[in-house]
Amino acid sequence: MAKRNAIYAQSGGVTAVINATACGVIETARKHRSRIGKVLAGRDGIIGVLTEDLIDTSRETPTAIRALRHTPAGAFGSCRYKLKGLEENRAQYERLIAVFKAHDVGYFFYNGGNDSADTAWKVSQIAEKLGYPLHCIGIPKTVDNDLVGTDNCPGFGSVAKYVATSMRETGYDVASMARTSTKVFVLEVMGRNAGWITAACGLAAEHAGDAPHILLFPEVAFDPEKFLARVETVVKQYGYCAIAASEGLKDANGRLMLESGLRDAFGHAQLGGVAPVIAGLVRKRFGYRCHWAVADYLQRSARHIASKTDVKQAYAVGKAAVEFALTGRNAVMPVIVRKSHRPYKWTIGVAELKDIANREKTLPRHFITDDGFYITAQCRRYLAPLIQGEDPPPYRNGLPVYVRLKNAGVKKKLHDEFKI
Amino acid sequence: MAKRNAIYAQSGGVTAVINATACGVIETARKHRSRIGKVLAGRDGIIGVLTEDLIDTSRETPTAIRALRHTPAGAFGSCRYKLKGLEENRAQYERLIAVFKAHDVGYFFYNGGNDSADTAWKVSQIAEKLGYPLHCIGIPKTVDNDLVGTDNCPGFGSVAKYVATSMRETGYDVASMARTSTKVFVLEVMGRNAGWITAACGLAAEHAGDAPHILLFPEVAFDPEKFLARVETVVKQYGYCAIAASEGLKDANGRLMLESGLRDAFGHAQLGGVAPVIAGLVRKRFGYRCHWAVADYLQRSARHIASKTDVKQAYAVGKAAVEFALTGRNAVMPVIVRKSHRPYKWTIGVAELKDIANREKTLPRHFITDDGFYITAQCRRYLAPLIQGEDPPPYRNGLPVYVRLKNAGVKKKLHDEFKI
Repeated sequence: MAKRNAIYAQSGGVTAVINATACGVIETARKHRSRIGKVLAGRDGIIGVLTEDLIDTSRETPTAIRALRHTPAGAFGSCRYKLKGLEENRAQYERLIAVFKAHDVGYFFYNGGNDSADTAWKVSQIAEKLGYPLHCIGIPKTVDNDLVGTDNCPGFGSVAKYVATSMRETGYDVASMARTSTKVFVLEVMGRNAGWITAACGLAAEHAGDAPHILLFPEVAFDPEKFLARVETVVKQYGYCAIAASEGLKDANGRLMLESGLRDAFGHAQLGGVAPVIAGLVRKRFGYRCHWAVADYLQRSARHIASKTDVKQAYAVGKAAVEFALTGRNAVMPVIVRKSHRPYKWTIGVAELKDIANREKTLPRHFITDDGFYITAQCRRYLAPLIQGEDPPPYRNGLPVYVRLKNAGVKKKLHDEFKI
Repeated sequence: MAKRNAIYAQSGGVTAVINATACGVIETARKHRSRIGKVLAGRDGIIGVLTEDLIDTSRETPTAIRALRHTPAGAFGSCRYKLKGLEENRAQYERLIAVFKAHDVGYFFYNGGNDSADTAWKVSQIAEKLGYPLHCIGIPKTVDNDLVGTDNCPGFGSVAKYVATSMRETGYDVASMARTSTKVFVLEVMGRNAGWITAACGLAAEHAGDAPHILLFPEVAFDPEKFLARVETVVKQYGYCAIAASEGLKDANGRLMLESGLRDAFGHAQLGGVAPVIAGLVRKRFGYRCHWAVADYLQRSARHIASKTDVKQAYAVGKAAVEFALTGRNAVMPVIVRKSHRPYKWTIGVAELKDIANREKTLPRHFITDDGFYITAQCRRYLAPLIQGEDPPPYRNGLPVYVRLKNAGVKKKLHDEFKI
């Protein structure tokens, strides 16, 4: 089999460990120089591939590539750019193949969520139709943990560890001042449709009364009266109430709570934030002093408190993607298969891209307590292993040291410019 | 000198390391059992002392007390309760002395900010007037770093490390997606009147173009046009703009930006948040996609990423407070004295409580660049040592292990109830 180049691209929202996957891809490819030439990367993801704006990762030292393992965010840039259907926009797919051809690319590694699995699958189809030999491998990544076909998604475990830690720490804080100060605290976390991150906040509580006391999942329609009654009960019982709320919390009509109407002084709608809306409800009803936090990007970039399990799995799926390609597989994705809960054992399996594409795994009902406000023991058993272990980055001058790659461009070979 | 008991109380907003100070007080007192009997603690701070709701710390094991060193928030509870002037409310002060007398208390350690220094000072005065023998020692604590008489305040270094780390991590995140996604990110941090925490965000940037690009200090009146012009320049130059904003940001009229008018759909004012207001301005002017985060209590409880320097200093001031008392000092506070910047050398000094009481140290003008949007090299030199070193807590099941004390109550000896 002739030696051919590879293209790796990052897609969608970045995570604390997507670069660990890039590290796994590149280090593994470098071990197979007889089969894989250069690993090129799309600058800003698939947009870089479409516009032939490619990065030559062979210009990076082994030390720099190794440092990707402990560097958050997307080292080559990522984008939210969903390719349309094959019939609607065949030109985009043909362009990808033209770029692959121009750079003698025989391997395409696309690192993202369910959209990306869909794209990677379509790319594999068009390549086949056009008779272009290509090994097209999707690699899972998403903080939302919403991919089907894999037990969990690289990226999620680290967010889970971050939010559970933050919830525990703020719980101690609020508890210690609740008598005269803040009685209700709301932490807003990510997960527009899937409540996995919200659920992970629940790991902070080990004993009755520990924070958080209420979890507001996007899967459970928000019932203000039921919620307020619960808040009151908790405050009476424990003196304070700590709440984790999903940014995707919806009311009974399916309307996002964050769209429920923050406006500026002129009546212009403001970018929401569920936490202030929830805190506002509580304050209005009970007059309790409330505080709220919106973790936003802090949660998905918090490499300093990444889960070691997550880092290992992120690396492993990158490594496996290259190994799959080298054994001739196509249109597949390496996935994480759980062998046992305690002790936690996992291995890498394989899933067909077409089975993953565009599907979404939300929190199953039996992971949520009957009242809709908490996680069940089953959910806890599932989540617990994913946050295990610490893998701190190196520190210099008191701060984590993250790598910035050279990201040297590859000379363009195509003469036409492609508009995206 | 007869053996007498001590009372320790935590005051005001808690921090990631105030319990390290408590650890320093209790461990040091335990080394001088011939002079100091029990260390009692006010439950929920001074309120516990006034109401004779005291905790017997001698019931805690050495292991539990040691664990305070790595446990955030206030282990005995804290409160925001400022005693009035001596003339206005002499009864409160006399009550304190009555409680001290009832429990044979000869040492009072009050751990807080400038309000608490004021209270401790007044307590020392009234004790003297009443002829009650008392060693009254203030111990510095505040995330705001706004106490005079000390080079820095225990509690600040850890928040500084947290916000600088978060700023660096989110900077990597935003940079990697800015081409097609969020171009402007705003992190709101604490510090209502003093911009020290905002300044610390600037430590994240080591090279030109690194996040953060703009710092919005409470000491600098917010000028929307100047700010928006800077945002535009930064986005054009670097592709994105990361901003740290103090919760205490004010406009030219001294009005808090967070009061500038978030309202719900019914026109009711909502608890602010400066970050959404700033993000809203940027979005309205330029249409850039913006994200914002409000760190709130996460920043001051983040013991998992505490500064080792901060933990050491927090312990040292607790230890010194006891040693001061044992050498007969009264109405003083142990403070941190900087001996040199690089290498950073510090020692414990002593300040008179009356010189610290009710004063506030804001960011000096020469620590802020001429344009008002950044920190100077001098400021960086001051801040840098305070975030040095890591001191991670122990972890179990993937989460930091923090101690909860028994907090056994002391039998009341006074018969009258004191209303606060």
